[in-house]
Amino acid sequence: MSKPSIPQGTRDFSPEVVRKRQYILNTLRNIFECYGFQPLETPAMENLTTLTGKYGEEGDRLIFKILNNGLHDITAEDKKQKLQDEWTKVTSKAYSSPVVTERALRYDLTIPFARYVVMNQNELAFPFRRYQMQPVWRADRPQKGRYREFWQCDADVVGSTSLINEAELLCIYQKAFNELTIPVKIKLNSRKLLAAIAELCGAPEQMMNITIALDKLDKVGWTGVVKELQERGISEDGIFKIEQVIKVTGDNNTKLAAFADMMQHSATGIGGINEISKTLAYYRTLADAQWTGVIEVDISLARGLNYYTGVIVEVVCNSEKVEMGSIGGGGRYDDLTGLFGLKGLSGVGVSFGIDRIYDVLEQLEAFPQQLASGADVLVLNFGGENENYALSVLRQLRDAGIAAEVYPDAAKFDKQMKYANKRKFTYVLLPGDEEREKGLISVKNFVTGVQQMVSMAEAMTLIRG
Amino acid sequence: MSKPSIPQGTRDFSPEVVRKRQYILNTLRNIFECYGFQPLETPAMENLTTLTGKYGEEGDRLIFKILNNGLHDITAEDKKQKLQDEWTKVTSKAYSSPVVTERALRYDLTIPFARYVVMNQNELAFPFRRYQMQPVWRADRPQKGRYREFWQCDADVVGSTSLINEAELLCIYQKAFNELTIPVKIKLNSRKLLAAIAELCGAPEQMMNITIALDKLDKVGWTGVVKELQERGISEDGIFKIEQVIKVTGDNNTKLAAFADMMQHSATGIGGINEISKTLAYYRTLADAQWTGVIEVDISLARGLNYYTGVIVEVVCNSEKVEMGSIGGGGRYDDLTGLFGLKGLSGVGVSFGIDRIYDVLEQLEAFPQQLASGADVLVLNFGGENENYALSVLRQLRDAGIAAEVYPDAAKFDKQMKYANKRKFTYVLLPGDEEREKGLISVKNFVTGVQQMVSMAEAMTLIRG
Repeated sequence: MSKPSIPQGTRDFSPEVVRKRQYILNTLRNIFECYGFQPLETPAMENLTTLTGKYGEEGDRLIFKILNNGLHDITAEDKKQKLQDEWTKVTSKAYSSPVVTERALRYDLTIPFARYVVMNQNELAFPFRRYQMQPVWRADRPQKGRYREFWQCDADVVGSTSLINEAELLCIYQKAFNELTIPVKIKLNSRKLLAAIAELCGAPEQMMNITIALDKLDKVGWTGVVKELQERGISEDGIFKIEQVIKVTGDNNTKLAAFADMMQHSATGIGGINEISKTLAYYRTLADAQWTGVIEVDISLARGLNYYTGVIVEVVCNSEKVEMGSIGGGGRYDDLTGLFGLKGLSGVGVSFGIDRIYDVLEQLEAFPQQLASGADVLVLNFGGENENYALSVLRQLRDAGIAAEVYPDAAKFDKQMKYANKRKFTYVLLPGDEEREKGLISVKNFVTGVQQMVSMAEAMTLIRG
Repeated sequence: MSKPSIPQGTRDFSPEVVRKRQYILNTLRNIFECYGFQPLETPAMENLTTLTGKYGEEGDRLIFKILNNGLHDITAEDKKQKLQDEWTKVTSKAYSSPVVTERALRYDLTIPFARYVVMNQNELAFPFRRYQMQPVWRADRPQKGRYREFWQCDADVVGSTSLINEAELLCIYQKAFNELTIPVKIKLNSRKLLAAIAELCGAPEQMMNITIALDKLDKVGWTGVVKELQERGISEDGIFKIEQVIKVTGDNNTKLAAFADMMQHSATGIGGINEISKTLAYYRTLADAQWTGVIEVDISLARGLNYYTGVIVEVVCNSEKVEMGSIGGGGRYDDLTGLFGLKGLSGVGVSFGIDRIYDVLEQLEAFPQQLASGADVLVLNFGGENENYALSVLRQLRDAGIAAEVYPDAAKFDKQMKYANKRKFTYVLLPGDEEREKGLISVKNFVTGVQQMVSMAEAMTLIRG
C-alpha cells in the first residue's frame, strides 16, 4: 500500500492549529455580531455559470470544476461507444461543456454573496449587513503561503450609500486588531482621488495605468514609479504633478487640505476628499479611545480590484517584528449585484486575511497561551479500585466546568506520563491507593514540577489558578 | 440574464439558520473540549485514491470528482487535437483516469481521519481523541432531508481498547442532548451479541443476514422480520431461538442476565454481555445525576456499517412530538487505519446528525429565543445634528457590550421602522431633538410597544432586561 497523502496546496489543521484559527474566527464573529452584521453561509459548490466570467480570464482558469455525476460510472469497456458519442459533443465546446461539468467550487465569497442577495431580494431587509467566513478554492500553483484551499472572511453592507458604513467598517478593523493585539496601520484613500490625479495630468483615461504604477510605490520607491509612469506614456508634466501630490506629508487634515488645494478644479477630487473627511468625522464619533491602530490617508493606496468606486482601505501590520503584506482590505463598490440583474445597489465591504493574521500572531507570539493544549488536566489511571476513584475524580472536575480527561487504560506509569508530556497538560492528577483511601488527590503541576496531595476542592482551586 | 440559482441538493444558510446551527455546533464543541477531545480539520479535497474503494461500489459512485486543472483551459478550436490525444488515453480507463481527475470532495469524515492518523502517527500522542465538524459531499439523488452537501460531526478515540472510552462517549451523548434539551433514548448493543445469535441458530456465517433482518424490527415488526429471515434461509428452529432472544423484556440488568443464560455456551456472547455490563458500570461512575436520557440495551440494534466489531450505540429522540430516525450513532471498530497500512489500532467513535438535530429542535421549538434576531438594538437616524448623537448613543451601547446597529441613512421614519420590524429587533432607540438636547434617549420595546424617554444608563438596564 502506498503512503497516503493530501493534494498539493491543501492542509490538515492539527488540534493546536484549529484552536488558534477558532480563536481568530470567534474574535471576529463576536465583533461582527456586536456591530449588527448577520452571518451567511453559502454552499461550496456553485453552478458553473454563476462563477464564470466574473474573475477575468485568468480567474476563470483557476476555478475548480466538478465532474458531473453519472459520468464517472461509465467505466466498462462496452460503454465506450456512449462515451465516444458524448465526447463528440464535448470536443465542440471542450471540457466546460455542461455534459461534463456544470458545477464548480466557489472562488471567493463576493460572487456567492451577490448571487444570494439577488435570489433573496424580496425577503431581505435592506441595508443588508452580512459577514461570511468560509473556505474558497483556487487552482493556483501552490507555493509558500499560497494554498488551493484557504479561508476568506468578509463583512459587507449593501443597499446604503451612507459613509457611516465606511466608518463602522473602520471601527470593526480597529476593534478586531485591538482584541487580537496586532498593532496596525490602516491606509485610507478614495478611488475618486486617483481619478482626480489622472485629471490633473490631463489624462483621465490613464487612471488605471497611473493607479497600477502608484500601487508599487512601497516596493519600488518613487524612482521605480517614475520609470513605470514613463513606460505607460504619462507626460513629464503629468509625472511632476503626480510627484507633488504623492510627496505631500503631514497629518490627515494637512494632507486633505493640500489635496483640496491642488484638486480645487476637479469635482471628482473634491468629492473624494469630502468622502474621506466625512468618513473620518463619523469614525471619530464612533471610535473607542482605547484603540491603538493608526489611520493614515495614503493617496498612493490603489487596491487591485477594478470594481471599487469610492473609499478604499488596506490594513498592514505596524510592527518591526513582522514582515507581511496587507492583512485586510476593502472598499466601496457600485452595482455588484448588477452582474445577476439587480441594478443600483451600492455596497461597501472589508475582508480579513485569516491565513496572514494567523502567521502574524505566530510571529508576534501573540496567541493566548492556553490554546496550545486542549484539556487542562489529565487524570492518571492506576487500574483496579483506583480506576473507579479516577473516574469519580474526573466527574467532579467536569461538573465544575474544568476540561479534563482520564488515561483510559491502566497502562504503565511511564507510558501515561509520556502521553501527558506530549499533550502538554498543565496538571496531572494521580489517584493512587493512598489518595483513594484518604479521599484526597495528588496534583502535579507540569510547569513547576511541584506535586502535592490535597482535597478535591483545593485541587480545583489550584487548577483554576 | 437568467435568474441565478444554486445546485440541486445544496443550501444557502440564512443568518437565522447560521445562528441556530452555530448554537448546535458550539454546544457540541464545548462538550468535546471538556471531555479532552481535540479538534481536527481536513481539506475538502482528498486524493481520489484515498477515497475510492472505501465505501463499496455504491459509495464510490457517489463521490464528487474534481476536473484536473490545466484541462479546463483547453478551449480553443486549435487545441482540439491535444484534447483528442488525451481522450484516447481517457477512454481506455474512462473518466476516472488520472488524466481527467485525481482529486475528489470528501465523502465522510472517517476516511480522512484514518488517513490523517496514518500520516501523522509519529507525532500524535495515543490514545488520540479527536472531534471533527465539517461538511461532506455526496452525489446522491436530492430529496427531502437528503442533501448533496451536509455536515457531519464525529468524535473518535483510536489507540485504546478500554471500555472507559465507550462510557465517555455515552456521557458525551447524554450531556449534549441534555444541554440541547432534546429528550433521548440511547440504544446499546454489541456486535458480539449479534454474532452469538447467529451461533445460537447454528448458522454463524449468517450473522450479517440475521443482522440486516433484525435491523428492520422497528419498521416491519416481528412478523416482517420472520418473513425476511425465512427468505434469507434461516431455519424455523433458528427463527424460534431468535424470537426468544428478541422478546426478552425488563430493565438492562434483567435483559443481560437472560442473555447470559441463553448464550452461556457462546464465548462470543459472554464477551458481548461483559462489554455492555462493564460499559454501563463505567458510565454510572462517570454520569451526572441530572441527565435525563434513557440508556436501553436493545439486542435488535444492528447499525448498518460493516466495520463495527464491539459495542454499538444509536440515539433516537424520545418525544411524541417528533417523528425522526436516529440523530446519532456509533460504535467500536478494529483496524480502520489498516486501510492505509497502520494495523492493529482499535477505535471507537460516535457521530451527531447535525441536520436532523436541527430539525428536531425546530419541531420541539427548543432553540433559544435570542437566536432568531441578531443585534438586540437598532438606533434610528434622524439626520443632521441628531445623526452624531445617534452615533454616540451607539458607541456607548457597544462599549457596554450590547450588540447594536444604527440605520446608516437618514431615511424616512416609516422606512426605518419597516426595517426594524423585518429584522425583529427587540429595542429601537429614537435619538431626536428633545433627546439630544436633554442628553436622554427614547427606548421603544417592540414586543410590548411601550416607549419611554430615559438616561443612557437606564436604557442599558432596560435592554439588559
